[in-house]
Amino acid sequence: MSNSIPADSVGLVKPQVHHFDEPLTLRSGKVLPAFDLVMESYGELNANKSNAILICHALSGDHHAAGIHSVDDPKPGWWDACIGPGKAIDTNLFFVVSLNNLGGCAGSTGPTSINPQTKKHFGPDFPVVTVRDWAKSQLMLMGRLGIKKWAAVVGGSLGGMQVLRWAISYPDRLRHAICIAAAPKLSAQNIAFNEVARHSITSDPNFHEGRYLEQGTYPKQGLMLARMVGHITYLSDSAMRAKFGKTVTDFENEGTNFGRDLRSGNLSFGFNVDFQVESYLHYQGERFSENFDANTYLLMTKALDYFDPSVDFDGDLSKAFANSDCKFMLMSFSTDWRFPPERSREIVNDLLKAGRQVTYLEIEADAGHDAFLMPIPRYVNAFSKYLGRVHKEISAEQA
Amino acid sequence: MSNSIPADSVGLVKPQVHHFDEPLTLRSGKVLPAFDLVMESYGELNANKSNAILICHALSGDHHAAGIHSVDDPKPGWWDACIGPGKAIDTNLFFVVSLNNLGGCAGSTGPTSINPQTKKHFGPDFPVVTVRDWAKSQLMLMGRLGIKKWAAVVGGSLGGMQVLRWAISYPDRLRHAICIAAAPKLSAQNIAFNEVARHSITSDPNFHEGRYLEQGTYPKQGLMLARMVGHITYLSDSAMRAKFGKTVTDFENEGTNFGRDLRSGNLSFGFNVDFQVESYLHYQGERFSENFDANTYLLMTKALDYFDPSVDFDGDLSKAFANSDCKFMLMSFSTDWRFPPERSREIVNDLLKAGRQVTYLEIEADAGHDAFLMPIPRYVNAFSKYLGRVHKEISAEQA
Repeated sequence: MSNSIPADSVGLVKPQVHHFDEPLTLRSGKVLPAFDLVMESYGELNANKSNAILICHALSGDHHAAGIHSVDDPKPGWWDACIGPGKAIDTNLFFVVSLNNLGGCAGSTGPTSINPQTKKHFGPDFPVVTVRDWAKSQLMLMGRLGIKKWAAVVGGSLGGMQVLRWAISYPDRLRHAICIAAAPKLSAQNIAFNEVARHSITSDPNFHEGRYLEQGTYPKQGLMLARMVGHITYLSDSAMRAKFGKTVTDFENEGTNFGRDLRSGNLSFGFNVDFQVESYLHYQGERFSENFDANTYLLMTKALDYFDPSVDFDGDLSKAFANSDCKFMLMSFSTDWRFPPERSREIVNDLLKAGRQVTYLEIEADAGHDAFLMPIPRYVNAFSKYLGRVHKEISAEQA
Repeated sequence: MSNSIPADSVGLVKPQVHHFDEPLTLRSGKVLPAFDLVMESYGELNANKSNAILICHALSGDHHAAGIHSVDDPKPGWWDACIGPGKAIDTNLFFVVSLNNLGGCAGSTGPTSINPQTKKHFGPDFPVVTVRDWAKSQLMLMGRLGIKKWAAVVGGSLGGMQVLRWAISYPDRLRHAICIAAAPKLSAQNIAFNEVARHSITSDPNFHEGRYLEQGTYPKQGLMLARMVGHITYLSDSAMRAKFGKTVTDFENEGTNFGRDLRSGNLSFGFNVDFQVESYLHYQGERFSENFDANTYLLMTKALDYFDPSVDFDGDLSKAFANSDCKFMLMSFSTDWRFPPERSREIVNDLLKAGRQVTYLEIEADAGHDAFLMPIPRYVNAFSKYLGRVHKEISAEQA
């Protein structure tokens, strides 16, 4: 391992593509005749294939969850804080599988893929996919890998929703469901924010009803705005205050101390950026819009809006868990206002009502929804201890 | 009075325009050589002109605060719930003055006005105006009306900020400052939402750097998006849930009950509107974008961002109130997450530190920030009783 790679990193990783020729019937009734799933794995699969963990990604995630792709590209995977040797999801103990979901834009079949029927990009013709469809395709990948039962299915946010779907739809295929910073279904406010994001994309004149790739254009401004709105909801007010809310008191010029971290000492009295939080949002939006597909963004937000596993059980989520056979671990974060602790407690209550075994931890953290991606000590310790017990459980059975 | 006008309405009202030929030097250093202010008044000014109340409007408000403009146009003013005979701001007792602020788009000089120097619309050349500038121009209007001291200056949200500015800058010109659902300055999150709104307007290809009127276009999509984002922040999550979050359980089709009030019984599995909250936001955004000027929206959000009266007092708001001579009444609403009760309490604490007399009321209400516009019984009663005492105070002095 190169000197530039930390000892607790999984190091250099290489994505693998799995092609599936079996047709996949989606929740919408549409059929994908064939598809690819791109994945990465970290750690070693044990002899009886009992130590595999599935990682499910959130809205803008992908298969690259840990390690780096090359020594020249030192940006680690999105959950590198939690996946690696000795980390919460310990790759010395587990074989960790992370894939890009269907509809994504990082290698799995999605709107930027070529539609074999038209030889053009799918674009807006890519069917709407749901959390249920993702679990179904993840089950096919599981078969391909020869894994009978996941030691755990793990995810945060939209990833946590996939975890719940696994526990409901495939009760005998996982031992543990670890669902972090999620919700049983979106609130009206959550949907409203998603709709603003979608509207900002679809009203961008470069969107061309989703056929921007054919047109050689890109709805960059729309995607940038969508991400800016999203980003506000991922951070807590207190995290923003900590980052940008410092009251600047050492300016020489009387009357220029407007707090909230002015970008320079002076107000522009124009429509330039005055406060650091503005340039931070611009930067985040801009960077994202250069690396993400707009149609995928639309699909991901719809998957969020549509998620509600109680729907097949007269709106009673506890009934959805009646046949679940795994143990549950839920975690939430105090300042998360996108999916606040109350939403996790709703799930916990329905799990208890269904007689399931559940561990729930509410973590004090300033970072808002994004906290689930961060190495917050109490979070990482609890996560690590829980998975340590999972590993003992597996080892005991193996012995 | 026509049968169609309720007895507790101020009835038909007519705006008046006041022209000012004196130059107004703004906070930015720029000078408006002349300007118009449009206003309405309700109730009668008493003989010694001691019963006048100034209403300050918020981001999208204007001078039309109560009553109606014609019997054919029955849409009442924006604060009709609180202004009228027998209402909280009782027009049987008070002479109520409501104006459109400088930079507005409802009749006062602003970006849609003709710049006498160029004979074209001001558009983006209209100078940035601040809360301080508004109070200064309101003082000139006060002079024009021959009023020496307001019985009260009253406003909610951005209007409440103007109230604080009056108490600080013109301590001998008001008896009472009534500041509702406001904040001592914006949080980083508040600024972030404003910046998203501004970016959605300025990135609309029809914006033309603010010269859309000259170009015969209009950044309708941008303004619509800005309002959609804004609207989410005006409502509480619980208000949205109450409005759109009903779990629909009587659908015949299995699998179509996705709660959050589906617009029809079925999911579209496309990017049409699926949930009522989406069409509600579209409707609000669309309606607003047809009636409001985009440059004015930019100006109003900048006035919000820039507001921080502590700036001239080493960042210590309590020092700003050292010379204030009025009594203060503050109110906030439990589910307001734009300017939550904590923000009002910050102001209250600084008022107490400055030795000011202050009444503070935190009202349980589901409606979020918008609650200040609504006839919520505890709010209206407290408001009404407070102003009743103000009227007794005036009457006692008069006698």
